[in-house]
Amino acid sequence: MERIGYPVFYLPVKQDGVIDSNVLKDYITDNSILVSVMLANNEIGTIQPIKKIAEIAHQHGAYMHTDAVQAVGHIPVNVQDLCVDLLSASAHKFHGPKGVGFLYIRKGTNILPYIDGGAQEKRFRAGTENVAGIVGMAVALKNCVSQMQKEAERLKIITERFYSELDKFGIDYVINGDKNKRLPGNINISIKHSNGEMLLHRLDLKGIYISTGAACDSKETKLSHVIEAIQVPKEYAEGTLRISFGRENTVDDSVTIAAAISAIVR
Amino acid sequence: MERIGYPVFYLPVKQDGVIDSNVLKDYITDNSILVSVMLANNEIGTIQPIKKIAEIAHQHGAYMHTDAVQAVGHIPVNVQDLCVDLLSASAHKFHGPKGVGFLYIRKGTNILPYIDGGAQEKRFRAGTENVAGIVGMAVALKNCVSQMQKEAERLKIITERFYSELDKFGIDYVINGDKNKRLPGNINISIKHSNGEMLLHRLDLKGIYISTGAACDSKETKLSHVIEAIQVPKEYAEGTLRISFGRENTVDDSVTIAAAISAIVR
Repeated sequence: MERIGYPVFYLPVKQDGVIDSNVLKDYITDNSILVSVMLANNEIGTIQPIKKIAEIAHQHGAYMHTDAVQAVGHIPVNVQDLCVDLLSASAHKFHGPKGVGFLYIRKGTNILPYIDGGAQEKRFRAGTENVAGIVGMAVALKNCVSQMQKEAERLKIITERFYSELDKFGIDYVINGDKNKRLPGNINISIKHSNGEMLLHRLDLKGIYISTGAACDSKETKLSHVIEAIQVPKEYAEGTLRISFGRENTVDDSVTIAAAISAIVR
Repeated sequence: MERIGYPVFYLPVKQDGVIDSNVLKDYITDNSILVSVMLANNEIGTIQPIKKIAEIAHQHGAYMHTDAVQAVGHIPVNVQDLCVDLLSASAHKFHGPKGVGFLYIRKGTNILPYIDGGAQEKRFRAGTENVAGIVGMAVALKNCVSQMQKEAERLKIITERFYSELDKFGIDYVINGDKNKRLPGNINISIKHSNGEMLLHRLDLKGIYISTGAACDSKETKLSHVIEAIQVPKEYAEGTLRISFGRENTVDDSVTIAAAISAIVR
């Protein structure tokens, strides 16, 4: 939108990674057409107050979109409760096939087709559909949602154990993003006077594959814009690690990884 | 492009469905930025003189794009021989998975990303790739190309037999599009004083699935714009049928279908 000439404003986040919905009120006008906020951040897992933000957007006649790619299948997502007009999700984030996703469009939302041409997908996205991908996505989502509550509780135990193991080893770290308003299974920490890249490579040699930021920017080596935005103190920021525990992980993995990190750091 | 304000001119075709490249010379100016012509038409299979058209485009500094969706895997396609800057193809047209395709971009061609965002696909198309689809496409294309020459000869025999069977039954029809400059396996005929829709449904009952035009417009019942453009005589136009013979068809199918059509028509 910026490229075609629309003014775009980027909202800041508080140090816990959450948007202060009051700040939106300073930015939004009756000319605003769209507010877009991630439901959950891809690096620090922070869950945003989408409903509050949507209400402000709607007061000014703007549409509300949420990028729910990280959230769908992992936390309850209900377009009515969230008051959103548009919601996007991606199958591979809930154990579905790569390269397929979906966009929820509230009835009456006036948007242009994404791809012009044939009549597929109600004329919003021309082109022969990825049928196998779509079916796989639906099956994966059903599976994920049916186990969601139980899985979230299990992941909570795994992540808590991870923190307590690090504490046991006396590692000096900060948790990035609100500790509770976050995705189950997401860990993002910064370790004092350490180096995320170095840790990554040393863990890789031990068969542990984690990341420093987003996979989409894995070729970048500079500090993640998320870590910058939440103002992680300088002596910690370089030592940032992101760990995503999921369906196939256990408490044992948590203990192993915490021990491996601690051994390298010390 | 029309929607965002660019003037777009549509070239006419001759009655054989082929573009007269000389007509392009009347339309093109040094301000033209893009010429786009299908390599082979999806309804009547006509193969266009892309190289000649590309040379005219390049003389005026315009890029040349060809939609080669119907052609790739079925006739020899070489971007150097065709002199094109951009070429698009779709996997399901050469027995690959649905919902995946590719765009060839000649080095140095100055185009904007299709989807902005992550760094995937050299920043031209952000988003996690459909890995399974891409691998399937490559395998399917290899298979198709390795059998292409032999398959084309086989399909030639099948289509020739189809015409001769119709002739045997005394069916009054015209072949739409140039009979020789066309895709192997493609048949598009118009039967005098007949009705394509009616034929389609009657053949459907016999387990024969063909079409009247393009699958993309299968919910449309009006005359195909292709049939209109090549000025099929009125008494024939309504009776248009498109048949695509492929890898799994045999001469027996050809004989069966011709007999079934003839029985209904008579």
